Amino acid sequence: MRVEPFAPEELAENGLLDGRVRLLQPVSGYRAGLDPVLLAASVPARPGQSVLELGCGGGPALCCLGRRVPGVALAGVEIQPGYADLARRNLELNGLSGSIWEGDLAALPSAFKARSFDHVIANPPYFEKARRTGADAADREMAVAGETPLSDWVRTAAKRLKPRGIATFIQRAERLPELMSAMAACMGSLELLPLAAREGRAPRLVLLRGRKEGRSDFRFHPPFVIHRGSTHGGGRDDYSDAAASIVKGGSSLQFPA
Amino acid sequence: MRVEPFAPEELAENGLLDGRVRLLQPVSGYRAGLDPVLLAASVPARPGQSVLELGCGGGPALCCLGRRVPGVALAGVEIQPGYADLARRNLELNGLSGSIWEGDLAALPSAFKARSFDHVIANPPYFEKARRTGADAADREMAVAGETPLSDWVRTAAKRLKPRGIATFIQRAERLPELMSAMAACMGSLELLPLAAREGRAPRLVLLRGRKEGRSDFRFHPPFVIHRGSTHGGGRDDYSDAAASIVKGGSSLQFPA
Repeated sequence: MRVEPFAPEELAENGLLDGRVRLLQPVSGYRAGLDPVLLAASVPARPGQSVLELGCGGGPALCCLGRRVPGVALAGVEIQPGYADLARRNLELNGLSGSIWEGDLAALPSAFKARSFDHVIANPPYFEKARRTGADAADREMAVAGETPLSDWVRTAAKRLKPRGIATFIQRAERLPELMSAMAACMGSLELLPLAAREGRAPRLVLLRGRKEGRSDFRFHPPFVIHRGSTHGGGRDDYSDAAASIVKGGSSLQFPA
Repeated sequence: MRVEPFAPEELAENGLLDGRVRLLQPVSGYRAGLDPVLLAASVPARPGQSVLELGCGGGPALCCLGRRVPGVALAGVEIQPGYADLARRNLELNGLSGSIWEGDLAALPSAFKARSFDHVIANPPYFEKARRTGADAADREMAVAGETPLSDWVRTAAKRLKPRGIATFIQRAERLPELMSAMAACMGSLELLPLAAREGRAPRLVLLRGRKEGRSDFRFHPPFVIHRGSTHGGGRDDYSDAAASIVKGGSSLQFPA
């Protein structure tokens, strides 16, 4: 738990989206990778709509989304005060405005509970979980002290969505059964986009989208491939064309029509 | 519901696995396609093990499995007496022995409930479902008169498995959320193998495997591609090499190691 604001010497500035987004990040500790970039790119938000990120950390996804979609109303919830402060600074650094709420997403204050959003997004922590049978999934998650169960993330997202609003989660592929069960229980029109490092590889990450009150059939999309070729070619220039247009070009990651 | 045995003039003989399996099927009504062939190929049964199929129909999957794995003990449950009779005839036609139980998988007689199996397999009906929100999934399924909810198929499979036994289901991709939720609730070590008609296409079918008392992480495999090329080339000879070795060569469909 990071309570104190980060001091200048604890931070370094990085660029995301080929420098379109400036991001202060702690030199040690959690640093944004590709995941918040892909999450932000996948949100089908239009100008004027509102977006809430649960567990926004230092704000990389919100900054990327705000940069791509002008005029979107940004909001975030972050349990660690030091990261909530950092998210506010990063929004400002990018000329964006937004409201960052410091607190536990499972215990939002009533003022916040009165608000609803067109989109809710989340990149829940990829903590290692205890090995288990299917039956004790809830126990296992609660056993990870201080962590919020994935089902709580999804239920909170559903509650904060407007009717027909869309939730988008990015998560390790290993947790798809939990994530999908949770989302199927409180939303509809689910869409799964697996993210594979390379063609023919097992997906390491998944994007799962659901719509509040959605009634369409589940859609299982072919994998989105991040890197070209079958082996690591070295350097950062081996992105697939589709990934490069997102990571370097700042484009959206569109789910297949 | 087909109660009466099929008369000879209602049946035609087809070959599966390039003629390795002979199969009597009704000229009109449900006929085996690729699905039971892929299901049977994917079951990691060893000689001497026991396999139960829930809803075995006229027995195409059991016949393919019995042909591929010598000395496997075959059993099936089928609610339609006419198809249960046909399954017995098809086993005999292929020189295989097995016990086919005529009845509802959700209400198995106690003699049957005393048995347990190394493998349980199923290819539940792909009935069209009423559109719905996520919350009323159970109601929706029960609304399809006479159909057994997918969660009952999975629970029955789990009950009939030996400890550490493996369940393998094939199903339309659209129903993955229901199937995965049901399997995650009563088994572990889930593995998902999407089946795509062609490279880069959305998977139309899924194979989902779970292990009773399994504790391994979920594994999300890259899609198994059935046909070569990006468009339909005409004829049946455009199988991918991997699919051809299964459908024509009688090989197993191995999940990635």
